[in-house]
Parts: sequence; structure tokens; C-alpha cells
Amino acid sequence: MFRELLTLEKAKRIILKHFKPQPLGVEEIPLLEAYNRVLAEDVTASLNIPPFNRSTVDGYAVKAEDTFGADENKPIKLRFCGIVDVGETPKIAVTRGGAAEIVTGAPIPKGADAVVMVEQTERKDNEVYVYSAVAKDENIMKEGADIQKGETVLKTGILLGSREIGVLAALGLTKAKVYKIPRVAVLSTGAEVAEPGTKLALGKIYDINAYSLSTAVLESGGKPIYLGVFPDNMTEMQKALKHALASADIVITSGGVSVGPKDVTPKTLNSLGKPGAIVCGIAIKPGKPTTVALLDGKLVFSLPGHPTSALLVFHLLARPIIQMLAGRKVEKTLTVKASASMRMFSAKGRRTFVMVKLKRDEIGGFVAEPVASGQSGAITTLAKADGFIEISENRQFVDAGEEVTVQLLSARQLF
Amino acid sequence: MFRELLTLEKAKRIILKHFKPQPLGVEEIPLLEAYNRVLAEDVTASLNIPPFNRSTVDGYAVKAEDTFGADENKPIKLRFCGIVDVGETPKIAVTRGGAAEIVTGAPIPKGADAVVMVEQTERKDNEVYVYSAVAKDENIMKEGADIQKGETVLKTGILLGSREIGVLAALGLTKAKVYKIPRVAVLSTGAEVAEPGTKLALGKIYDINAYSLSTAVLESGGKPIYLGVFPDNMTEMQKALKHALASADIVITSGGVSVGPKDVTPKTLNSLGKPGAIVCGIAIKPGKPTTVALLDGKLVFSLPGHPTSALLVFHLLARPIIQMLAGRKVEKTLTVKASASMRMFSAKGRRTFVMVKLKRDEIGGFVAEPVASGQSGAITTLAKADGFIEISENRQFVDAGEEVTVQLLSARQLF
Repeated sequence: MFRELLTLEKAKRIILKHFKPQPLGVEEIPLLEAYNRVLAEDVTASLNIPPFNRSTVDGYAVKAEDTFGADENKPIKLRFCGIVDVGETPKIAVTRGGAAEIVTGAPIPKGADAVVMVEQTERKDNEVYVYSAVAKDENIMKEGADIQKGETVLKTGILLGSREIGVLAALGLTKAKVYKIPRVAVLSTGAEVAEPGTKLALGKIYDINAYSLSTAVLESGGKPIYLGVFPDNMTEMQKALKHALASADIVITSGGVSVGPKDVTPKTLNSLGKPGAIVCGIAIKPGKPTTVALLDGKLVFSLPGHPTSALLVFHLLARPIIQMLAGRKVEKTLTVKASASMRMFSAKGRRTFVMVKLKRDEIGGFVAEPVASGQSGAITTLAKADGFIEISENRQFVDAGEEVTVQLLSARQLF
Repeated sequence: MFRELLTLEKAKRIILKHFKPQPLGVEEIPLLEAYNRVLAEDVTASLNIPPFNRSTVDGYAVKAEDTFGADENKPIKLRFCGIVDVGETPKIAVTRGGAAEIVTGAPIPKGADAVVMVEQTERKDNEVYVYSAVAKDENIMKEGADIQKGETVLKTGILLGSREIGVLAALGLTKAKVYKIPRVAVLSTGAEVAEPGTKLALGKIYDINAYSLSTAVLESGGKPIYLGVFPDNMTEMQKALKHALASADIVITSGGVSVGPKDVTPKTLNSLGKPGAIVCGIAIKPGKPTTVALLDGKLVFSLPGHPTSALLVFHLLARPIIQMLAGRKVEKTLTVKASASMRMFSAKGRRTFVMVKLKRDEIGGFVAEPVASGQSGAITTLAKADGFIEISENRQFVDAGEEVTVQLLSARQLF
């Protein structure tokens, strides 16, 4: 059933030869809902920020030259000429020898070109004593000093967090143009797989993959469409996949892809669109029986049934595609250097991934310890592992004590 | 108006003396919606996983002793005794000299205690030739090998990601008990502040803080309740704060807390509950005019109006509290070492935070460059900074070339 197995790199090249992952489109959404979305346009400022010359302190707006020579022992006396309120067009102007009371953020009144801090003044009825000279523009933030009208403030492709959303609000915007979120249909196959929440008959196990992969889709910036478990026969699979292809941008199935007599996934995929299966088996362990198909423009990833294998292959192949469809930068996996706790063997001729747990050694470094090696069907492997190491095709093993690079499953747990 | 300024540590101690942040309660939600939520109970397995002895390969279920002595040149002949299907109770048993066809994941039939891989067999009608001996239990995953019934598989407080949700699904669960998300009311004050989306009158600026802080609440694991801008007068503030306190677990305001004549926040807070304002001003720069109140059991953070100051103080004081109310671990801020690009001065007697941008130097290290120093009202500071450095109260400056620790605003941008 399988042709010669492809290397991981070859498999990636074939996928990208057939399918160019591009953002799926643009939608405009309320700014308050734009957290963690990807900006889909360059945003240029439609106004100066600040939009007027503002005082950066509480004090008195003056003509700077009127204060020259003032010091603690020799204050200069100015004439109180009114109050400039914050949030209003100044109703007064400052003429020679005048001083207008002003608060932080209020517009500088006509005629004034500096602000003396309140701490350096003393007010006596209609007289304002200035105890310190100010230079022209002192304590003033000029119109456009922060953002110039027409300036590009945020670029296409940036992920919107608190700071970026703050900048968009500063421009008076209440909406943002962002890339659409890729819809990813997730389904599991296999006669032995039962939906969680149902009673478990003898010989059955609960479905894990549709749950873990749906969540992995969220972690990758996609929107999962959970379609549950369907039987491992061609008619049912065709029906389920047609539905999945109609309602999603990309489809992830798991199970039903090994070489057992009931495996119908590749055949079914070929029946559903062109060019059909483009990757049938990859020289990796775990993950060998991975099938990737392109069906009339949509990718279908058929991952192995073992939970750890399915999530690993998702991580290697599907996650970067989902990120690109979402307009996101493909995130590099975080890595740490560690020392191997024991000899770990590779599978002959296949790139081998060993799930490992990290422990601290006595001098603050990391030790990578394989998790439940030899139990590739184990679920707890998933929960216990911090990451995985990669052993290349041409090596038999990684030796105890050897330095290895651990690719982390999530950054969180180490900090 | 302000008493003696508190140090940052003293301010934190006072807050935690008055208010013990505890998770707000537990709710049960669908497992597929539990991504990024915090588990609120220890989960113990209600079944063995796998729930029966399963084959880990495709092949023939046999009695191991029947294969002893078999090798490539001297196969042992067994009697084909039927097929065990995946997902079903085996209808057959394996007796002495028998071999039952079996696929990966199928239950081991009665009488069998090992599985020979299909690659090491040859079938001729009703005879099965075995070319390799197997040991007892070979290629079998025993009932409970992965998870033992009664075992604690996930502990209270863990953040649910793809792997944890997979483990819960494996146990047949479709719901999870998680901590409630803290509701955080966010509002801005100030006569000069206008809601984005409205026309900007002269003297006004658009509100940034309610937007950036609402998003920062999301980033901290809270649910923001955006209440917008309200005028800087006592009656309106009382009304708005009463509404905020009634609808949220914690309240964040910004603006209206400096020493200008229109500042009524601390007075207003004291009028709304006991004990009232517990922190009035902190010896930090920026962020000095921060007020924290406890009003009948709910915390109110009144942050400065400057966007960068507001977000920094949020990060220092409010974020850890929100995380604790959400049942989350208080995340340590990621830090990197960098070399200061220039001399950076502190404010006399105040802990000073300088927003910096990171650049790579020629040898792969980081250089920390201050962003828009001296423009504390600048919005773009927010967007341009990668993090901040801290200069302690008893230092005048950090020198050019000195090694500094940069606390990152988010981990993303460096990887």
C-alpha cells in the first residue's frame, strides 16, 4: 500500500509544492475583540498625536522669555490671566507678562510657549511668582510629537496585544481589519474508538485525538470544528470527509491509516478530489502512517491513531500550515539544551522523535529523560512529556550524557 | 493630598495584607471549551487505560510458548483459529497451537499471551507459519499499563492545553471543573479623554487605556468588562464605580489620579466602601499617582492616565492579583540580559522603570535601548518597547555598557 517512505523534509516540500499557504481573507471586527488576532493592513495615522500642543505638567503657561533670570531667591512676578481647562479649547491667550493656570494634558493657550511647574510658582491673588526659568517648549508635548499624521504605526501581520490595541484606540479606531481564522475540521476514525461521554463497550477505548487535536488547533490560531468519531469504512468516511471539506478550510483526521486490513483512508481520500493523496507514509517514528491529501484545493492531514504520534505529526506538519493560513508568523519551537539521561535508540532508517521529561541537574542544567519509551500508544506520555528530542536517520542512538536539543511542547512549564 | 510615598514592595504588602487573592469559584464547562482554563479539581481515573489487554501491532495472537525455537530458517506451524476484530469482544479463544489474526488496538483473545508481528508470519490457508519467537506479553499493552483506575492523572491548578484535554477525554470525560474567570471592570476618566469612534473636539484625545487595559486583562486570564470613559467629577465617578463594583470582581480605572485641581478619585473611592484607599501614591517612576482601594471586599486599582504608566503599573500590581483570582500560577516575567546602550537616569528616590527596545549586537547578545525617554505621555513608547529595566531607588543611573536585566512585555517577539 505504501510507496517508498519520504523523509520529513521531502514530505514538507511536496506539501508546499502542491499548496501555497496564504491568509484566507480579511474581516473587520471590533477592536475590543481583536486580542490575539493578526492585523491584515498597514495602519497609518489619520491624525497627529497628540492632536495639539499639550502641557505635560500642572503649572502655568507662560512666554518662556518672561521667566529668564528667575531663580529661588529672585522670583519673577507675572500677571495671572486665567485658567486653561483640560479637554477644552482655551478661551484665553497669554500676552507678554501673563501666566495662565494649566493642568497636565490641557492645550497650551495662544501666546504661551512653555509651562512652569506648579512647584516652582507661588500664586498671590492676581500675581504669579515664578521661581525657576523655563526654556521655550519646556513641559510641552508638541502636536504630532508622538505620532505624525500619515505615519505608518502598525504593519500587516502583527499579532494584536494590549499595546497594539492601545495604539489603534489612540487613533480613534474602534475596529480592526484582521485575517480570518482558518476553520479546521477535526475527526477521529476507528472501530475501537468511542466518543467520550458514552458507555464504553468491551474492546473500545475513548477518543482522545479529536479532543487533543481540536485544542492544538486553538493553540495554533485556528478554529476547530469538532466532528467526533466516525466508523472506519469507506462509505461513512466519504460522507464525513465531504461534510468536513464543505465546512472547513483544512481537515485533520486521525486513526485508520496504518496497514491493517480495515485501512481505507488513502483510498477514500483519492476518491474525493484531485490530486488526492500526495504524501503516503513518512520515514519518521512515530508517525510513519501519515497520509496528506490535497482535495480540490483543501489539505487533509490523516494522522496516526496513537495520541502522542498524532499530536507530534500535527506539530511537525499541520501547525505551521494553520499558522500561515491565519496570517501568523510560523512560530519557532522553543528549545533547551539538556543532557540525555540514558541511551535512546532510533528506529532504523527513520527520523526518531523521543518524548522526554526535563529535570534539573545539580548545577542548574537540564537532564532529558525519555517518557514511557516503548509504549507508543500511551496517553500519559502526552501529559508527562515536556518536549521531544530528534535522532537523525543516520544515527543508531543518542548516548547517555550526550548533549541533546529538546524541542518544547509549550514554553510555559519551564518558567 | 498624598501621604509619604510607599515603596513598591510596601505597597504590595499592604494590598496583600488587606486582600487575600483566592480563586473565585468553580464551574463545570464542556471539555472542548476548556482550552486555557485552570483545572479546579484533582482528576482521578475512573477506569483502567487501556481498559483491556490490547495488541500493539498487526499480527497473530498466540501462546508465547508455542513459538519458542522459531526462527527464519525453521518456522513453527500454528493452526489459524479465527480473526479478532478491533473494537469488539473477541468471539474466539486461542488454544494450544492456535493463532488468531489480530490488528493493532484489538483486545487479546482468551488463551493468548503474546502477539507475533505480521511481518514475521506467513499464512497458507489454515496454517500460520511463525518465523520468530515471541516472549510472554510481547506486543501487548496490558490493561491499566498507561493509567491505573484510581490514579490521579491531573492536579488542581494545571492550565488545560491540548495534552491535558486529551488525557481528560481518554477518561471518557466531556466536561471539566475549572476556576471561574475573574470579571474585571475597566474604565477611563478625564475631561480630555474621548471615546474612540467619536469626533475629536479640540483639546481632547482618544482614550487608549480602557482598550489597552481591557486587552491586558485578557492576557492575564481575566474577562474585561469595558465601561468606557466617564467624566472626572465626583458624582459621575461614584455612579460609574458603583456600577463597576456591582458587575465585576475587580475594578481598574485610569486617569484622574494626579495632583491637579480636578482629581477626585481618592476622595470618591473613600466614599464608596470600607476601608477605602489603602495605597495612595507609590515611589516609582512612572506610576507615582497610583491609588489602590479596597471597597467592601473588592479591589479598585486607580492607575495613572499615561498609557505606558498605566500598563506598567497594571503589570506590576493588578496582573498578579487577576492571575491569583483566576487560580493561575503567577507567571514569572521572562527576562533577558542585555547591555545598556546609553546611560539611563533614575528619578531621585523612586524605583525607575525605563522602557527599552532590544537589538542584537555583533556577537549575538542583546543591547537595551531606551524608547522615547522623556516623553512619558507617548503612546508609541508602548508599541516600540520590548520590555523594561528597573533602576533601584539608591542608584542615580545605569551606565552605558552595563549589564541590565530586561523584563519582557511578552515572550513572543524574541523568538
